[in-house]
Amino acid sequence: MLIVQKYGGTSVGDTHRIRLIADRLLATQREGNQVVVVVSAMAGQTDRLMQLAQEVGGSTGLENHTRELDVLLASGEQVSIALLAMAIRAAGGKSISFLGHQIRIRTDSSFSRARIRAIDCSALTSALEEGMIPVVAGFQGIDDEGNITTLGRGGSDTSAVAIAAAISADVCEIYTDVDGVYTTDPRICPDARKIPRITFQEMMELASLGAKVLQIRSVEVAHRFGVALHVRSSLNETEGTIVSDQAPMEDIVVTGVSLDLNQARVTVYGLPSRPGIQAGVFQPLGAAGIVLDMIVQNPPEDGRSNLSFTLPTRQLEHSLKLLQSNADKLDLQKLKSDDQVAKVSIVGVGMRSHSGVAQKMFEILSDAEIEILMISTSEIKVSCLIPRFAGEEAVRALHLGFGLASEDV
Amino acid sequence: MLIVQKYGGTSVGDTHRIRLIADRLLATQREGNQVVVVVSAMAGQTDRLMQLAQEVGGSTGLENHTRELDVLLASGEQVSIALLAMAIRAAGGKSISFLGHQIRIRTDSSFSRARIRAIDCSALTSALEEGMIPVVAGFQGIDDEGNITTLGRGGSDTSAVAIAAAISADVCEIYTDVDGVYTTDPRICPDARKIPRITFQEMMELASLGAKVLQIRSVEVAHRFGVALHVRSSLNETEGTIVSDQAPMEDIVVTGVSLDLNQARVTVYGLPSRPGIQAGVFQPLGAAGIVLDMIVQNPPEDGRSNLSFTLPTRQLEHSLKLLQSNADKLDLQKLKSDDQVAKVSIVGVGMRSHSGVAQKMFEILSDAEIEILMISTSEIKVSCLIPRFAGEEAVRALHLGFGLASEDV
Repeated sequence: MLIVQKYGGTSVGDTHRIRLIADRLLATQREGNQVVVVVSAMAGQTDRLMQLAQEVGGSTGLENHTRELDVLLASGEQVSIALLAMAIRAAGGKSISFLGHQIRIRTDSSFSRARIRAIDCSALTSALEEGMIPVVAGFQGIDDEGNITTLGRGGSDTSAVAIAAAISADVCEIYTDVDGVYTTDPRICPDARKIPRITFQEMMELASLGAKVLQIRSVEVAHRFGVALHVRSSLNETEGTIVSDQAPMEDIVVTGVSLDLNQARVTVYGLPSRPGIQAGVFQPLGAAGIVLDMIVQNPPEDGRSNLSFTLPTRQLEHSLKLLQSNADKLDLQKLKSDDQVAKVSIVGVGMRSHSGVAQKMFEILSDAEIEILMISTSEIKVSCLIPRFAGEEAVRALHLGFGLASEDV
Repeated sequence: MLIVQKYGGTSVGDTHRIRLIADRLLATQREGNQVVVVVSAMAGQTDRLMQLAQEVGGSTGLENHTRELDVLLASGEQVSIALLAMAIRAAGGKSISFLGHQIRIRTDSSFSRARIRAIDCSALTSALEEGMIPVVAGFQGIDDEGNITTLGRGGSDTSAVAIAAAISADVCEIYTDVDGVYTTDPRICPDARKIPRITFQEMMELASLGAKVLQIRSVEVAHRFGVALHVRSSLNETEGTIVSDQAPMEDIVVTGVSLDLNQARVTVYGLPSRPGIQAGVFQPLGAAGIVLDMIVQNPPEDGRSNLSFTLPTRQLEHSLKLLQSNADKLDLQKLKSDDQVAKVSIVGVGMRSHSGVAQKMFEILSDAEIEILMISTSEIKVSCLIPRFAGEEAVRALHLGFGLASEDV
């Protein structure tokens, strides 16, 4: 098999763990596999570098220094690839490290959140043919002008998946410090179970669960190129969660329950009923790169309606300013916001063929006396916005109500 | 003026000092100059990275991991260029950072001690034309295959001089934490004076003095390309030492006194007199990259002579093994070594036109009752190997004897 293994910052957090990973890679190779490994910066490095950046450039806002910030942050992975390649060699293996620009991980020029366009695999392929374990710096690339770019937080997962796609790997193993993807957050629900198999779509809808183990953007790339992911622990040999096109054989309706505490709600009152009005409201937000999640509009009364939507809490203040500056022009009556909310979601491909799943969710929340503030549904997901204080209680009620804790769902 | 400024690790040791350098660079620019700045890794970084390397690869000897070691160490300069570029921008200037590969500092492939072959200045020139202060990573380059290379300890000085040569800078200012080059080590001789002007040749001969302020290899490059160096302090505005082709106007015979405690002496007894015998002795040392310093051979008696030479103390043991393995073949009678020695030297271009300088040195040492073990002379330098314990005493006697302490030499 041709395997891409990706190790996060905690897994390469110190030299002891780096040596353990070297052993694990060599064991994988001895079993007859070819292995490419992608690594993140050592845990704590990125924070340390950000602190330094804050000290020199913070007064003017780091968003004005994204090119240099990428040069700075990319140094973190440079350290870990060199150390891991050394550790593999010291353990008797053959290895060579590659920086983003050395295997031409071409990206666009959006510093700090670049998108991968292409990867030149020839150096990787040659190294594999020579029996080497190539160690690739995750998170970083290079644009057409030769500037260093980075892919954003968690970008190493995307690097690994993109490399797996480019070299047609059989599987991309994402190593982390948890065993896999769980039916819900085990800190909220102690009886949460590890999900053995999950589809790309479910994984994307379970973003808030998945975000703890892998970057959701990498799931999109894996989906697009059909790269099977295996999310597993670097601390043991247990099988983790396989993320692929294949749904599990059993007829599972709800795969997982997720909770998102980072959304705030904005309501625009008295929206005049005229074509293009919603576009007018959202335009400044879109231009500022603010991504909306749930959007709900009531039918108009007396030519006006109310429009509610959620957006990331940290962008709430900025968003309200943008909306306010536009309010007179658009003839809006009032703006209100609430950041004391939570979004709870149930996800499962089985929903497509089962009716009444949303209804059952509403009943469970009702029985728990939890108020539903907003609802949004997709083919494989139902989300409810609820009061923030009730978030964890809702998760426990849904996890129990949909039978996720027991093995015989 | 077009100025290259180089700041060492201490000068960029923390974010406060980085901001001070940004201010200094902007002040230089405001005076109507164009400035390119070359920086080293923040003080302490290289040691920290070497420690990590030792932990993962040390068991097999780091000399087996030079390619990866260079990838690792080059990350240090990557951090400092990004931070300095940010600091310049935060202080209102325009700046862009460049890694070795981004301005194609092409080197050979001798990892950890690469030599610069060429630099592509087009990106630097464009940046200067746009009013920017380009910040270049010292110490690093790239070979023909795109591997990261480093130039060895102190290589940032060489980077700065090479860049100054490539862009035809008017001067290359080397900033350090001392005021310039002194007539001798002020820790040994408290009345040592700063030398205002010194020639390249004198500077190279004063290697052991100079090594504290700039890498001697950089002086060779500066000499070859006629780049004037200005060695000065980053802590104040005082003029430092100008190193150039021009000797000072005054008739100074001895410019400085240096002491080298890193040389050990080897003596080969009973060397047979036949053509090529010295080449036979030295061949294995040369092949191992060991550089000899003083070499003295007595005239032969009874067809055999004694050959003494000095080499770096840290390579003594290895050298003795190499010599021993060859001893039978070459019919050598005995090998002896002594690492309790010191080399004291007087240097000055004025010696060329003054006779009796060496004689005066011997008299001064004799008056101080210091035994002379070996002597070697060049046009502008006289060196004596003496017992190690007498090293500092010899420096003080010569510094006083040649009138270096007073202003009216």
